[in-house]
Amino acid sequence: MKKIMNAPDSFVAESLEGFVRAHEATVMFGGGRKFIRRRDLVPGKVAIISGGGAGHEPLHSGFIGRGMLDAACTGHVFSSPTPDQIVAAMDETDTGAGCLLVVKNYDGDVMNFEMAAEMAAARHAVETVIVEDDAATGPSVRGRGRRGVAGTVVFEKLIGAAAERGADLAALKALGDDLNGRVRSMGVALRGVTVPNNTRETFSLGPDEMEIGVGIHGEPGLHRTPLAGADEIVRLLGERILAELPATVEDVTRQWPLLLVNGFGGTPPIELYLAQGIAHRFFEQHGIVPARALTGTFVTSLDMAGLSLTLALLNTDQFELWCAPVATPCLSW
Amino acid sequence: MKKIMNAPDSFVAESLEGFVRAHEATVMFGGGRKFIRRRDLVPGKVAIISGGGAGHEPLHSGFIGRGMLDAACTGHVFSSPTPDQIVAAMDETDTGAGCLLVVKNYDGDVMNFEMAAEMAAARHAVETVIVEDDAATGPSVRGRGRRGVAGTVVFEKLIGAAAERGADLAALKALGDDLNGRVRSMGVALRGVTVPNNTRETFSLGPDEMEIGVGIHGEPGLHRTPLAGADEIVRLLGERILAELPATVEDVTRQWPLLLVNGFGGTPPIELYLAQGIAHRFFEQHGIVPARALTGTFVTSLDMAGLSLTLALLNTDQFELWCAPVATPCLSW
Repeated sequence: MKKIMNAPDSFVAESLEGFVRAHEATVMFGGGRKFIRRRDLVPGKVAIISGGGAGHEPLHSGFIGRGMLDAACTGHVFSSPTPDQIVAAMDETDTGAGCLLVVKNYDGDVMNFEMAAEMAAARHAVETVIVEDDAATGPSVRGRGRRGVAGTVVFEKLIGAAAERGADLAALKALGDDLNGRVRSMGVALRGVTVPNNTRETFSLGPDEMEIGVGIHGEPGLHRTPLAGADEIVRLLGERILAELPATVEDVTRQWPLLLVNGFGGTPPIELYLAQGIAHRFFEQHGIVPARALTGTFVTSLDMAGLSLTLALLNTDQFELWCAPVATPCLSW
Repeated sequence: MKKIMNAPDSFVAESLEGFVRAHEATVMFGGGRKFIRRRDLVPGKVAIISGGGAGHEPLHSGFIGRGMLDAACTGHVFSSPTPDQIVAAMDETDTGAGCLLVVKNYDGDVMNFEMAAEMAAARHAVETVIVEDDAATGPSVRGRGRRGVAGTVVFEKLIGAAAERGADLAALKALGDDLNGRVRSMGVALRGVTVPNNTRETFSLGPDEMEIGVGIHGEPGLHRTPLAGADEIVRLLGERILAELPATVEDVTRQWPLLLVNGFGGTPPIELYLAQGIAHRFFEQHGIVPARALTGTFVTSLDMAGLSLTLALLNTDQFELWCAPVATPCLSW
């Protein structure tokens, strides 16, 4: 796939540069350009720090600002940021209440954030929330927890809102851990992804094929099938989400369901909204009436065509955190 | 290109259905589902009504809400809404101060909105603003004015903000007409567009080609060239924009430049932000320092890969209208 870029080596840095220029009232580069941070830090608030490989934009930098993240560390395309970047972000944004790290569950990310937390342990109180929402990779499939995918937006929004209201590090950690029992995502690809320094797609789909259960790094999915209509696609994703919802959410009818339809980068709004309508009906027919919906391009896999559904079954306090005001470049209400 | 859809015939209706479900606190279907409207109309405010063919989402429905549009009428893919739809929107949203129609400059749209204005003339005071911002189609090229493309977002935001502040119909019409002398856009495609009931792209680009000066309906551009780096792409677009800026903006240094990087539907945020940074520098080097930047997917051509730059040279009052609060599904601050 063709890309708007100058060269693979400068692709990520040039994009981050443009991002900061576009949103300079809200965000700025941290020291040494190792991360992007919120411009106006709040003394005494727990610093919420996330990050990961590039290629998932607007995640994570797009969610820096009031009511969400304080800093985001970006690695190369689909590669973890280094511990050095993460420590620098902690040093610059911890205003005294400690740091909460929000980390998608991939070996490289988990290892580097863990290493950073150890390196900074003498200077900072640190807790880590690992996001594990991908219904395609249950413990049974993968053996080391689910991947973190589009549900990360829900984690960052709720944890960020709680921090803004003054929640302490322990409460934020508990909130994040609780969300892993409430948030499930499932994705489909219509076209694979090409990383900038390769010429071939990581997986290649025929003109009448789709791939169910894909990740956000060009990981192949659970199975490949003939391209189906939108109703059938939503049913395949939705049924897997329902099957993988944990038993910890006992009374679904007392929850506040949140439904996110997320585009993977190459999927236009007209298709995302179409899927939103169908998914809304699908879950309603299963007794889950979405209390809020979010539709758009939030967690991408470069320019992959396809989308994911995320269902979050929030309790009343959590739903209020979702609805709380947020002022970031890419999520704002 | 593959699409998330059930059938071509229901594609638009199903997407609109999902859109309304996703944003039901802000918007609702108007009578007979002929249009989508703001839920809370403001008595005595001029009704701002726009519309056009489907396939450009989130334009126009995504910009319904406080500080922007009151109603949007959607036609079939790349086809104007009917006069009947537009009249229905006027009848339902005119609260006494008349209606301003914002219309992109295409023959079908102009004709149908004109017909609607005539049909409703006995019941409504109506003015029409025709958006003509495409630098690829100067009067010299096309003979009947420029096409309306991504700059439409600027028109709708400024006119909507002015209406919200109480501007009357004549003032809003004058504002819109003035903007045609201040806003220029230019687009590039890396991959053509396939409409849902066809199997072929409207134009087809080789793996190493790009098309400069494209429209948003699969219209071919001004010229096809080998795929260039992002610096060169921005230079090609930017120089054309500068060349087509009208002489009516006499003192550029006293204007408030707004720079919009708009994705056409198949282009991910990482590439859009990269282009934003380069475009920012390009215009700065030409003495135009952007006062605000907007980056995202606002005016699409289904899933076409590519983007457009829009430069708007606003005066102080207009810039304040840009910065005024807005609360719509797809533009909010």
